[in-house]
Amino acid sequence: MSLLTMLDYAGVALFAATGALAASRKQLDLIGFLFFAAATGVGGGTLRDLTLGQVPVFWVKDPTYLIICAAVGIAVFLTAHRIEWRYHLLVWLDAVGLSAYSVMGAAKGLAITGSPTIAIVTGTMTATFGGILRDLIANEPSILLRPEIYVTAALAGASAYTAAQLLGLPPAASSAAGIFIAFALRGGALRYDWTLPRYRARPGRPADEALRKRRSKKR
Amino acid sequence: MSLLTMLDYAGVALFAATGALAASRKQLDLIGFLFFAAATGVGGGTLRDLTLGQVPVFWVKDPTYLIICAAVGIAVFLTAHRIEWRYHLLVWLDAVGLSAYSVMGAAKGLAITGSPTIAIVTGTMTATFGGILRDLIANEPSILLRPEIYVTAALAGASAYTAAQLLGLPPAASSAAGIFIAFALRGGALRYDWTLPRYRARPGRPADEALRKRRSKKR
Amino acid sequence: MSLLTMLDYAGVALFAATGALAASRKQLDLIGFLFFAAATGVGGGTLRDLTLGQVPVFWVKDPTYLIICAAVGIAVFLTAHRIEWRYHLLVWLDAVGLSAYSVMGAAKGLAITGSPTIAIVTGTMTATFGGILRDLIANEPSILLRPEIYVTAALAGASAYTAAQLLGLPPAASSAAGIFIAFALRGGALRYDWTLPRYRARPGRPADEALRKRRSKKR
Repeated sequence: MSLLTMLDYAGVALFAATGALAASRKQLDLIGFLFFAAATGVGGGTLRDLTLGQVPVFWVKDPTYLIICAAVGIAVFLTAHRIEWRYHLLVWLDAVGLSAYSVMGAAKGLAITGSPTIAIVTGTMTATFGGILRDLIANEPSILLRPEIYVTAALAGASAYTAAQLLGLPPAASSAAGIFIAFALRGGALRYDWTLPRYRARPGRPADEALRKRRSKKR
Repeated sequence: MSLLTMLDYAGVALFAATGALAASRKQLDLIGFLFFAAATGVGGGTLRDLTLGQVPVFWVKDPTYLIICAAVGIAVFLTAHRIEWRYHLLVWLDAVGLSAYSVMGAAKGLAITGSPTIAIVTGTMTATFGGILRDLIANEPSILLRPEIYVTAALAGASAYTAAQLLGLPPAASSAAGIFIAFALRGGALRYDWTLPRYRARPGRPADEALRKRRSKKR
Repeated sequence: MSLLTMLDYAGVALFAATGALAASRKQLDLIGFLFFAAATGVGGGTLRDLTLGQVPVFWVKDPTYLIICAAVGIAVFLTAHRIEWRYHLLVWLDAVGLSAYSVMGAAKGLAITGSPTIAIVTGTMTATFGGILRDLIANEPSILLRPEIYVTAALAGASAYTAAQLLGLPPAASSAAGIFIAFALRGGALRYDWTLPRYRARPGRPADEALRKRRSKKR
């Protein structure tokens, strides 16, 4: 099994787990767990393969991915009640999955098109689409609209992998660099509330001040 | 016209009708009816064809599907005000469409890939994606998050069809078995509130009890 | 550069600008601006290419589109605070983008399939999907559910272009006719609140009257 296949299996399993945890928050039945695990697990890679023209998509060519999603969905259904901080676990698993998938998506995009721009975009898209889809069908506020670094971490991981490959590093080193950078950024955002400067319509407007205060109180 | 083509036309027409009924609940104009009828009618099959690599997708190859959607949209626009229980009708039409499409999706997946796993997944996906898309763009709570059996019925129908085909039954018998099982499950869920055991985070927690009581009162 | 390529670049840039303006309303960071600009800018064309089987999709074949989205996203991030009426600008840019894309989508559909029905559908779909996606991921009420003419304008533009092409007009004249009609309808809807007759469940019911009154007061 190649390094990239392993990364792919890992990314699918991690995102499937976050999907199943979202299903547990919604108190769905077992089939609901399987559905959320599969949609979140293979969603990002499906969009990547469709846009690159790699059809049938990866999970049609190799049903192992679906079996991984099903196994993860069942395991979470049976064990999630033992986990004290499920939302906490969800966002951290999502962080690891995002890191693996930012590299995996960039690698496939680079291999097929040879274009660094496309590699960075497919990496970012693959890493973020599963979580966006999960939040959308679970009717939760999208992770996109939260203040902390998210898409940025995927973009940085995909860019680091692509740059390392262009510099001629071996695939394992490029992958490690991409995963490390993506996870460091996303993990730091989760742990220390790292944010990029946000757009502010009217700096210093009283209404804005009030809004920011209300938000920081909520946390 | 083959059996599967007939099933496909029927599935598209039924889902198109549920889309148009959703448009009537939102009090849209005629074009809004056509849009919802088309998106709901061909959404599931489009995702099926894209992932299987069957492109151009079915409604590009045969515009009859679009004409069916348009005709259904116009018919519902002209007649829906005569229907007393439109939401009731919507969910029952959705149940029949889901049953037809679980078989149709599984048949196409099995014919193209030969894999039973893929057949079950494409059947489930085709049968449920139209309704998910309809709820999403109509900004209604997703049918996925409701307690009764839904995805499960599609999964059972697709599995029954696939199993019957593997056992060597004639296509008409396999199709009938799949449709019957899917509709029996979904119809039973609608009529008798059948549910699978739902995931419960902390069995017996007071908060959970209260939540369940509030829910059963609402019905 | 051909007329259609220019239209495509213009449509992408305009929709990217509406996506970035949506990001400014959500007070996202720069990467959030880039994400919304790219998703809104290329979303419609991506769905068009996927359903027509034109893969890899256009922005994979020609990364210029992504660079346009990034440039627009950065420009809006740096300048949007100077714009007094950002929502106003968003809907008008969306109107121009919708007009360009209804023709562009119809042209590609007609060129590839030769079917006028498909051309009209791909034109409408390409012109409206970007805005639908933007509203969905920004968690804003969908433009589909607003009372004024929207999908109708895209449908009229795509139909006008297709009809003009069938009548043998030169491409530039057909494009101009389609863009003009789509923009006249959508612009009129924005300026004068043009609507088509909406579906009314029970004409004259007191509840409906009350609802309508409440709505017109809100404006």
